[in-house]
Amino acid sequence: MPASPVLSQLPSYEVVKTKAQSLKGASVAEMLERDTNRATDYTLSAAGLQLDYSKQLLDRDARDALLALAEEATLPAAITKLFNGDKLNNTEQRPALHTLLRAADGGALAAEFAEVVAARGRMRQWADQLNNGDWLGFSGAVITDVVNIGIGGSDLGPRLVTQALRPFHGNVACHYVANVDPADLQNTLLNLQAETTLFIVCSKSFRTEETLTNSLVAREWMKNAGAVDADLDKHFVAITSNLQAAADFGISPDNCLPMWDWVGGRYSVWSAIGLSCAIAIGWDNFERFLAGAAAMDEHFKSAPLEQNMPVIMSLLEIWYVNFFDAGNHVVLPYDNSLQKLPDFLQQLTMESNGKRVSKDGQLIDYNTGPVLWGSAGTMGQHSFHQLLHQGTQLCPTDFILPLTTHTGMAEQHRRLVANCLAQSRTMTVGRSVDEARASLLERGLDETSANDLAPHLAMPGNRPNSVITMTSLTPETLGALLALYEHRTFCSGVLWGVNSFDQWGVELGKEIGVQVLGLMSGDASFGSMDPATERLVREWQAEQ
Amino acid sequence: MPASPVLSQLPSYEVVKTKAQSLKGASVAEMLERDTNRATDYTLSAAGLQLDYSKQLLDRDARDALLALAEEATLPAAITKLFNGDKLNNTEQRPALHTLLRAADGGALAAEFAEVVAARGRMRQWADQLNNGDWLGFSGAVITDVVNIGIGGSDLGPRLVTQALRPFHGNVACHYVANVDPADLQNTLLNLQAETTLFIVCSKSFRTEETLTNSLVAREWMKNAGAVDADLDKHFVAITSNLQAAADFGISPDNCLPMWDWVGGRYSVWSAIGLSCAIAIGWDNFERFLAGAAAMDEHFKSAPLEQNMPVIMSLLEIWYVNFFDAGNHVVLPYDNSLQKLPDFLQQLTMESNGKRVSKDGQLIDYNTGPVLWGSAGTMGQHSFHQLLHQGTQLCPTDFILPLTTHTGMAEQHRRLVANCLAQSRTMTVGRSVDEARASLLERGLDETSANDLAPHLAMPGNRPNSVITMTSLTPETLGALLALYEHRTFCSGVLWGVNSFDQWGVELGKEIGVQVLGLMSGDASFGSMDPATERLVREWQAEQ
Repeated sequence: MPASPVLSQLPSYEVVKTKAQSLKGASVAEMLERDTNRATDYTLSAAGLQLDYSKQLLDRDARDALLALAEEATLPAAITKLFNGDKLNNTEQRPALHTLLRAADGGALAAEFAEVVAARGRMRQWADQLNNGDWLGFSGAVITDVVNIGIGGSDLGPRLVTQALRPFHGNVACHYVANVDPADLQNTLLNLQAETTLFIVCSKSFRTEETLTNSLVAREWMKNAGAVDADLDKHFVAITSNLQAAADFGISPDNCLPMWDWVGGRYSVWSAIGLSCAIAIGWDNFERFLAGAAAMDEHFKSAPLEQNMPVIMSLLEIWYVNFFDAGNHVVLPYDNSLQKLPDFLQQLTMESNGKRVSKDGQLIDYNTGPVLWGSAGTMGQHSFHQLLHQGTQLCPTDFILPLTTHTGMAEQHRRLVANCLAQSRTMTVGRSVDEARASLLERGLDETSANDLAPHLAMPGNRPNSVITMTSLTPETLGALLALYEHRTFCSGVLWGVNSFDQWGVELGKEIGVQVLGLMSGDASFGSMDPATERLVREWQAEQ
Repeated sequence: MPASPVLSQLPSYEVVKTKAQSLKGASVAEMLERDTNRATDYTLSAAGLQLDYSKQLLDRDARDALLALAEEATLPAAITKLFNGDKLNNTEQRPALHTLLRAADGGALAAEFAEVVAARGRMRQWADQLNNGDWLGFSGAVITDVVNIGIGGSDLGPRLVTQALRPFHGNVACHYVANVDPADLQNTLLNLQAETTLFIVCSKSFRTEETLTNSLVAREWMKNAGAVDADLDKHFVAITSNLQAAADFGISPDNCLPMWDWVGGRYSVWSAIGLSCAIAIGWDNFERFLAGAAAMDEHFKSAPLEQNMPVIMSLLEIWYVNFFDAGNHVVLPYDNSLQKLPDFLQQLTMESNGKRVSKDGQLIDYNTGPVLWGSAGTMGQHSFHQLLHQGTQLCPTDFILPLTTHTGMAEQHRRLVANCLAQSRTMTVGRSVDEARASLLERGLDETSANDLAPHLAMPGNRPNSVITMTSLTPETLGALLALYEHRTFCSGVLWGVNSFDQWGVELGKEIGVQVLGLMSGDASFGSMDPATERLVREWQAEQ
């Protein structure tokens, strides 16, 4: 295998570094005033989304240097390979075909596309049946509630889409259970009737600990309510590759939809894993969701790098992580229905690019994926925005803003928009000590008090942020938004030289989990562990 | 005002720095094996909580050096001042008396304590009345649901406590609305009846934009359901300092409970702001919650620094932020009911210590408060743990683990415990390339494949983490846990030399918010703004 190009060895790396150094004292607010075209030139449009990155701490030269870096990292070729179905997931020898899941045709990937079309047909059938009230439970009553049991990629994506597209909901309420903590399932079942509930079990292996444990409890609950084995197919479907295990559980092959090796969990909301949200919003809206993502795919595939939204967002990530030492990235959707977006993006970005070796196994000597976090605005304004404005950590931020609301409450939404734009502007322009002092004197403070207090009110500004807008949050724009972050993640992985499609780092914890469980049960065959774990196990035993 | 001691000028600062340098190559796993007492010596117990910090990357010398730093920063004196009611919030000339809110007696603070006792009496009366079914709405029906309208500190604390203590709930369901996004309130009201709903409006000024906007919509909803002005007191109470504004809204003074200048929003769950959770869990349980916090206060006040749980946790924070360049801190409660804990702690820590000037207004030349983030385990294991185990960012982590469950589902809970301990151990011990290779050969891979894949499975270990345990999550242990993090935050603020009790950084955003709203309405009196904001406003206008 040829060594992958690795960021710090690229010819332009030092150029970008020098450029970053030279911009460390620069003021974005001044750049915005000086370059009157900046506000429009640093704005991109694609698939119903607008990206305004004019408040990022870079100029045209820096952008050019970053674009050169992308060329040197052979990003255009990598994008082509992604869509062609090359085995980019080299450690598992698999392609990453999530774009095929939302494609209108399969091109050269005819065999895989035929499977996608078949799965879509089954999903449509089930979604229609449920929304039409044609799916009946063991007592003959119509199914009214669906509970998705899955974790990680089998939970975060469908949960986000269902919550984000509430104005598009049909006749079935969808619920999500993920945690192995029994309280999660217990609290969900509290408000449901077994005879009108359908469970979707999402687990490729049908062995995922949390999902299997919860599914067994769900089956018990169903049986206690009067369902017999022959009824289970009325109340359970599975998204899995392990038909045998599903059958052993009581779900017949006809009630199973496939998971493919060529789709990773965190890229799978477009597949049968999205069944619960397809049910929630109905099939036509789910197709609109796929179409929105496909439109972003088209843009990503065809737009030149300098006008390519995912590429530009990825270069900004590289810029701050590798040249400004940023260890985190903030996402602030100013839309309450997107409150789960940061959770979804945490998995997408941190599981994809939280890597310390290159694709070919070399230890990397620079930082890769940052911590991603955030919350729905305006909540954070009354919480962590203090640190965004006046803290010592660099926190590059994406604001996400639908420009209209489905709620019909225009006045409240106008305030939401104003808050979003104000936070973005405040991060940029800040306030000098002199301005703070003047403002305090104006409020009537005496000179000594104003002098003492002014440094506490002063804000440095220059805190980099983008604003991503859309006319409104619809199935299409949500699809485009998620695809945007998927592709941004992929581009950053290419630049960092890592495999964004494996997740070997989660293996060992599972193995050790089995050993600890053995130790807790007093099974001596697992041998000894570190003294700290043994002490904690004793502490647990003492409470049982 | 005498200059506050500032971290980088303390005599031991360089000692700690040298010590940190010398430990950068050290292995915690080896330390644990070598020092057989480590697992017990690095464990503290207080107020029903145990802190195990034996997997932190430090040794006895480093701990001693950090403790010296704490002495030099006059931390013991600062603790005394906190409890004595000194005006530690120097920029606002106020004491920080959150510990008084849970005290059994007021000591020298008799006047303030009398107010606390009076407020507690009213809270108890209302909580009892509601739980006994004695509070009737305008139609004569019993109030069954309470909606808390507040944001930031008026939301996060009560919401967390209500959710965390579900097994202790009484007869009234409590709901929380915070966001100005109209969807938040709208979705909550969907399942409620006006005649059986009571709103608690939490806003010191009664002018907080989000809270006032939502309260006006709530009042409209109530009136549309048939309530007249004279009925409003049956359906609205307020926690506020602005009795006049509450009266103008329609809430009489008898229906108001006070907010005091000497309690900041993020420290206020113990005050009348906690009314909603006192209703949810009933008064006796709320008193147990206060008592748990008071027990932690007692420990914090009296334990020597080296055995003082909040102090040790704060020194660990300083250690990683200032000597290992950590920019973030992770909190992973292995209890689904604590899923809002990271949100609560984000405000507590980031609003308190996200500061760049010292108490006396000097620009600080080192990092202060880090980004705090996390989620309920085991969710993250299927998401961002990849980065925790194999990423390039240092992410010091607190695991929080109740050792028993209220759910009665012991087997599932046993798995939860095993997962928690396994993640903690995995972060510490990691896996070498050789071990990974051996494991792959054992699985049947050929030598070339095993060699290629091993670096991807290898994990460095040595990722610092603590485990905080408790017998079970009760009102007492939850109170102690929140007080623990409050005091940790205070100690770190003292060491960094910042005022942890103000939040001037949120002011400017509010001012600019008003200006942007003006610009959006076409009000020319606000003058011009930066070209980026003006362009975004035009983009918004085009969609209206």
